Amino acid sequence: MASQLHLHPDRLFSSNPVERDIARTLYNDVKDLPIVSPHGHTDPAWFALNEPFANPTDLLIKPDHYVYRMLYSQGIRLDELGIWRKDGSCSDVDPREVWRTFAKYFYLFKGTPSSFWLNYVFVNTFGIEVKLDESTADHYYDIINNALKRPEFLPRALFEQYNIEVIATTECATDELSYHQQILDSGWKGKVISAFRPDAVIDPEHEKFATKLAKLSALTDLDCTDYDNYLAALRQRRAFFKTMGVTSTDHGHPTAATADLSHSEAKTLFAKVQSSHFTADEAELFRAHMLTVMAEMSIEDGLVMQIHPGAYRNHNKSVFEVYGRDKGADVPSPTEYIQALKPLLDKFGNNPNLNIILFTLDETVYSRELAPLAGHYPCLKLGPSWWFHDSPEGMIRFRRQTTETAGFYNTVGFNDDTRAFLSIPARHDLARRMDCVYLAELVARHYIDMDEAHGLAKDLAYNLAKRAYNL
Amino acid sequence: MASQLHLHPDRLFSSNPVERDIARTLYNDVKDLPIVSPHGHTDPAWFALNEPFANPTDLLIKPDHYVYRMLYSQGIRLDELGIWRKDGSCSDVDPREVWRTFAKYFYLFKGTPSSFWLNYVFVNTFGIEVKLDESTADHYYDIINNALKRPEFLPRALFEQYNIEVIATTECATDELSYHQQILDSGWKGKVISAFRPDAVIDPEHEKFATKLAKLSALTDLDCTDYDNYLAALRQRRAFFKTMGVTSTDHGHPTAATADLSHSEAKTLFAKVQSSHFTADEAELFRAHMLTVMAEMSIEDGLVMQIHPGAYRNHNKSVFEVYGRDKGADVPSPTEYIQALKPLLDKFGNNPNLNIILFTLDETVYSRELAPLAGHYPCLKLGPSWWFHDSPEGMIRFRRQTTETAGFYNTVGFNDDTRAFLSIPARHDLARRMDCVYLAELVARHYIDMDEAHGLAKDLAYNLAKRAYNL
Amino acid sequence: MASQLHLHPDRLFSSNPVERDIARTLYNDVKDLPIVSPHGHTDPAWFALNEPFANPTDLLIKPDHYVYRMLYSQGIRLDELGIWRKDGSCSDVDPREVWRTFAKYFYLFKGTPSSFWLNYVFVNTFGIEVKLDESTADHYYDIINNALKRPEFLPRALFEQYNIEVIATTECATDELSYHQQILDSGWKGKVISAFRPDAVIDPEHEKFATKLAKLSALTDLDCTDYDNYLAALRQRRAFFKTMGVTSTDHGHPTAATADLSHSEAKTLFAKVQSSHFTADEAELFRAHMLTVMAEMSIEDGLVMQIHPGAYRNHNKSVFEVYGRDKGADVPSPTEYIQALKPLLDKFGNNPNLNIILFTLDETVYSRELAPLAGHYPCLKLGPSWWFHDSPEGMIRFRRQTTETAGFYNTVGFNDDTRAFLSIPARHDLARRMDCVYLAELVARHYIDMDEAHGLAKDLAYNLAKRAYNL
Repeated sequence: MASQLHLHPDRLFSSNPVERDIARTLYNDVKDLPIVSPHGHTDPAWFALNEPFANPTDLLIKPDHYVYRMLYSQGIRLDELGIWRKDGSCSDVDPREVWRTFAKYFYLFKGTPSSFWLNYVFVNTFGIEVKLDESTADHYYDIINNALKRPEFLPRALFEQYNIEVIATTECATDELSYHQQILDSGWKGKVISAFRPDAVIDPEHEKFATKLAKLSALTDLDCTDYDNYLAALRQRRAFFKTMGVTSTDHGHPTAATADLSHSEAKTLFAKVQSSHFTADEAELFRAHMLTVMAEMSIEDGLVMQIHPGAYRNHNKSVFEVYGRDKGADVPSPTEYIQALKPLLDKFGNNPNLNIILFTLDETVYSRELAPLAGHYPCLKLGPSWWFHDSPEGMIRFRRQTTETAGFYNTVGFNDDTRAFLSIPARHDLARRMDCVYLAELVARHYIDMDEAHGLAKDLAYNLAKRAYNL
Repeated sequence: MASQLHLHPDRLFSSNPVERDIARTLYNDVKDLPIVSPHGHTDPAWFALNEPFANPTDLLIKPDHYVYRMLYSQGIRLDELGIWRKDGSCSDVDPREVWRTFAKYFYLFKGTPSSFWLNYVFVNTFGIEVKLDESTADHYYDIINNALKRPEFLPRALFEQYNIEVIATTECATDELSYHQQILDSGWKGKVISAFRPDAVIDPEHEKFATKLAKLSALTDLDCTDYDNYLAALRQRRAFFKTMGVTSTDHGHPTAATADLSHSEAKTLFAKVQSSHFTADEAELFRAHMLTVMAEMSIEDGLVMQIHPGAYRNHNKSVFEVYGRDKGADVPSPTEYIQALKPLLDKFGNNPNLNIILFTLDETVYSRELAPLAGHYPCLKLGPSWWFHDSPEGMIRFRRQTTETAGFYNTVGFNDDTRAFLSIPARHDLARRMDCVYLAELVARHYIDMDEAHGLAKDLAYNLAKRAYNL
Repeated sequence: MASQLHLHPDRLFSSNPVERDIARTLYNDVKDLPIVSPHGHTDPAWFALNEPFANPTDLLIKPDHYVYRMLYSQGIRLDELGIWRKDGSCSDVDPREVWRTFAKYFYLFKGTPSSFWLNYVFVNTFGIEVKLDESTADHYYDIINNALKRPEFLPRALFEQYNIEVIATTECATDELSYHQQILDSGWKGKVISAFRPDAVIDPEHEKFATKLAKLSALTDLDCTDYDNYLAALRQRRAFFKTMGVTSTDHGHPTAATADLSHSEAKTLFAKVQSSHFTADEAELFRAHMLTVMAEMSIEDGLVMQIHPGAYRNHNKSVFEVYGRDKGADVPSPTEYIQALKPLLDKFGNNPNLNIILFTLDETVYSRELAPLAGHYPCLKLGPSWWFHDSPEGMIRFRRQTTETAGFYNTVGFNDDTRAFLSIPARHDLARRMDCVYLAELVARHYIDMDEAHGLAKDLAYNLAKRAYNL
């Protein structure tokens, strides 16, 4: 007989009754607040086209690299899971078979946030009452598969059910935002905006750099092989994104390096990195310089700048060759901020119109670099614990290691940062619970009082994100 | 109506009743022990001249970079706070207005040790019973301002009220310690000693290096452009400091690098770094060499050597240009000890007459480098969690990450390291509470027993500091 | 009167009753499971010869660098402890005097795992009921000394009493495993295998590299000055170790660097590093290349590969000169894995026949590098917290920082890694308790349920080690 699946109302709270009761009270204040999702990777096409999701596997497994990286680590081949290859194809494995494999190995996720998120979805979105394992795989598949055909499981219906006030997707600087336009044109009240991500036109090492530059030229009617035109084109695209309601940019560089080249140095370097003869150091320098340029443009146009450095992308060579990007083979790397950001901060660090949100995959910098920087520079705030660290322990480490130096008000609330749409309420719920856990500790230890905690809980769950992202 | 301000007797203790009761018992043993403050930055003039503090703002805001760095990070300009500029001037903002700004933004400090320290001072030194916010700003200002005119708030009276057994200030090697002499001459029984800090005459990159070397020559009647005279002069100054009761030196280098140059190499390098033509590497090598020389002199004269590496000073360029040093713009940086200290340790690491206390701003080295080094070398002990990390969480991280490898007896008790005189009892109280919290955990988990904890609590609060600093 | 020594049944468990009760229940399941010790440094001669241990000092102090490094750090000279020198001699200090010194300073270990381990041995192996201090030193010495003469304290008897299912020692690639053969020949049922450790024939900077290469040639009848013969000889030795029941190799390089040289590059480099004219970089490159070669051989022969990088050996120069290796003067150093392992992983990372267990002394890599790598690559698993970190806090940090990304099933249970034979049950007990503490937290916070915890507790205490090491 399958075991019952039950979401305990106190999950993640301390079992110490003093802290648990405080956490319950605080959580009760914030659990139903609308979701503000200022940074993520959902597909705007879902909300534009509002078509049913295909099946449980295509919805919950194939787009979720948290899920299949774990299965892969235990010897399940990506083709057994039907993961899409670089060329768009995938193995012809039956989605139901993939689901069975997933069910069989679901025990691997014990103690990971994926189990929290997925069980939340199983219970709250699909009303399932038994645990997922081999014996219940088909039961799950049938329930979910049937549900997806019903109107209340269409993307827009879920968006509304999830009480999402606003969600930001992330698009390349050369994207025409046609799905976003389609959403606006449709009259649907759901607020789906984008974020301006220029990495592919800024990073000479990006495999599509040349193609994207050409597209940038085409879109703007400016010859972007020339540095001045290139900057003008970027300004034009930013302005276009702004007209579409966008409030932020996003920069996913390998490091946090910034630089401040003279105009002529930058012009020369830009010519060089468009040739095929440049070094890794030159590529790094160009990216570094452009981060400072992006800061300058943010001062001009008011877009909030998000810096997400430190991911070593596509670490697994043969997985990359066959399956391409974003296949669960990205890993963090040590990331330095103090030296890296100095050129940008020397130039603009005290400018009252600049807003930068810093993220990291290297938790050692929370207390050593990020909190001290954000606790001084008016332009800097700290994004929440990110990616590998958006978990109960990761979130507590973030608060413990940043609050005492940077306070709460140099942080910006939660980002779900996900392409797994159905997990969004679960992820916000997890974040809200963990902030309540942290605040409950502070109250129970008389470090703050209950009045302060009530206000903080709402700020962390809702207000700070709106404020930081101008939403 | 303003909210009540109340310091809970159990603050910072666990709310788990077993641990809380143990912590209470241990804390009761140590809360009234005299304060031993072996390292800090109070101004000896306060105790020499014993003049009233000017007003709440000059006393509590303008000298406390923990306070104004947070305000600055949220967009309050330093001139709005009347922060002193490099040239000694400051904006003519009314101190009461500064206090109001501070009160308005006091919520920023929630969850930071500054709120713990300041509320402690408000209640215990000034007897205030309402929380600080905009509505109570003037009430606070009046109470504190009036108090400061009363004899019981003069520096010496507070020193006595605070039960300070001994406090060490920190002075440059070329300081004549005239205020300390004045204190000695006055017949006042308060023990205020100095610490010998030679950074400005050792660091070729210090902006006053040449000036201070000239002063060193003048003071010692030795031509300190010559390396041998320079060493003799340093020995002379150390001897002078010793006659004034000093028991320690302090070295605030950018890194922990040490080196062991031959006499002729050192002589040549010293000549070079006095010219204006030296590289950053040469400056680093000279500082590194001189740290080993300082160790040698410590073996001779018995002064305990404090090494405080890893602060990236004056990170904010324009703040430095206008406001100068120590304006809340210092940040930690990654700091390596294993390789860095090897030359010094190769030479003197097993010498029974050497005592070095190591500090860090890089918490990653607690378990990886510092505890393993201190758990082996007889000359090394670990200073407490420092600066950005002298907070409840920072202190617990220090104990959790050092104790299991280095034990308690390779640590040296608490340093308040502050120039905020009134916060000293609050800082020691916080440290004593957190050590009791840690010990209570160990007792509650039967890792140590209550007898052991009683002894340890007293050692951590009082005995270890006296012993380590020969006080 | 001496204080009573008492091992509390709940030691190390949370004092929060909810968590404590869960931990008790889980611990009850696992406390009596047989000990699987897949990696350690016990001496096979003990089990081959089965002779009585000499005296308390030779058994418990002189081989335990955890013990004497702490004493040394507080000024006790190694000669006062009779520590063996490089030349095999030692001071003629009376073992009873050494024991008295140890007893006098036993308070230094408060709050360290050594006190947990030693007290466990005192109570459970020797039945002692009073605490160790100066007043009880002779009492202890007499009890232990007398016990050691009794048959139930012979190595094999203790092995059986400790319920050791299998133990792996570690031998050099050139070891003839004659003690292991003797054990097999004796008909004793105790399972004592070795692990294949080729460092001395792979590391050109090892002081015995030339000697060991010569021995390798002699043993295999292959001229190992030639690269191809050298590889053939290594294959031969691995095959020999396999015939002796060995299931793993062990690699203790200074870093985790790997490389993939062409055959001709490798041949040339091997010639170079056998000369006396090679650089540190060449030595590093050769070790790096050979780690990839070892992976290739592991794919061929199925030996599980353990990589233990990051120890800075023999940091104390004069201790090394007089006393030699392994004298408590090894320290961790910052260790990078993402770049370091890429060449090996590019070549073999997706090979289903490769099994690598990664260890670290640099805890910052748990969440940043190791868990993300192990949570993706099928060939990688994580060894338990190691050496300086095999302590209550160290173990909790390991679980907290790896589980959420890598899960439990990319870890391999516990290694005691010790040469202190008597402490083995204590070390496994500590590990089992801490895993129960961690699981109890997860259950108490409803992150996993009790059914899941029961299974996990057994996997962590027993099954995972057997599975990962093919035992």
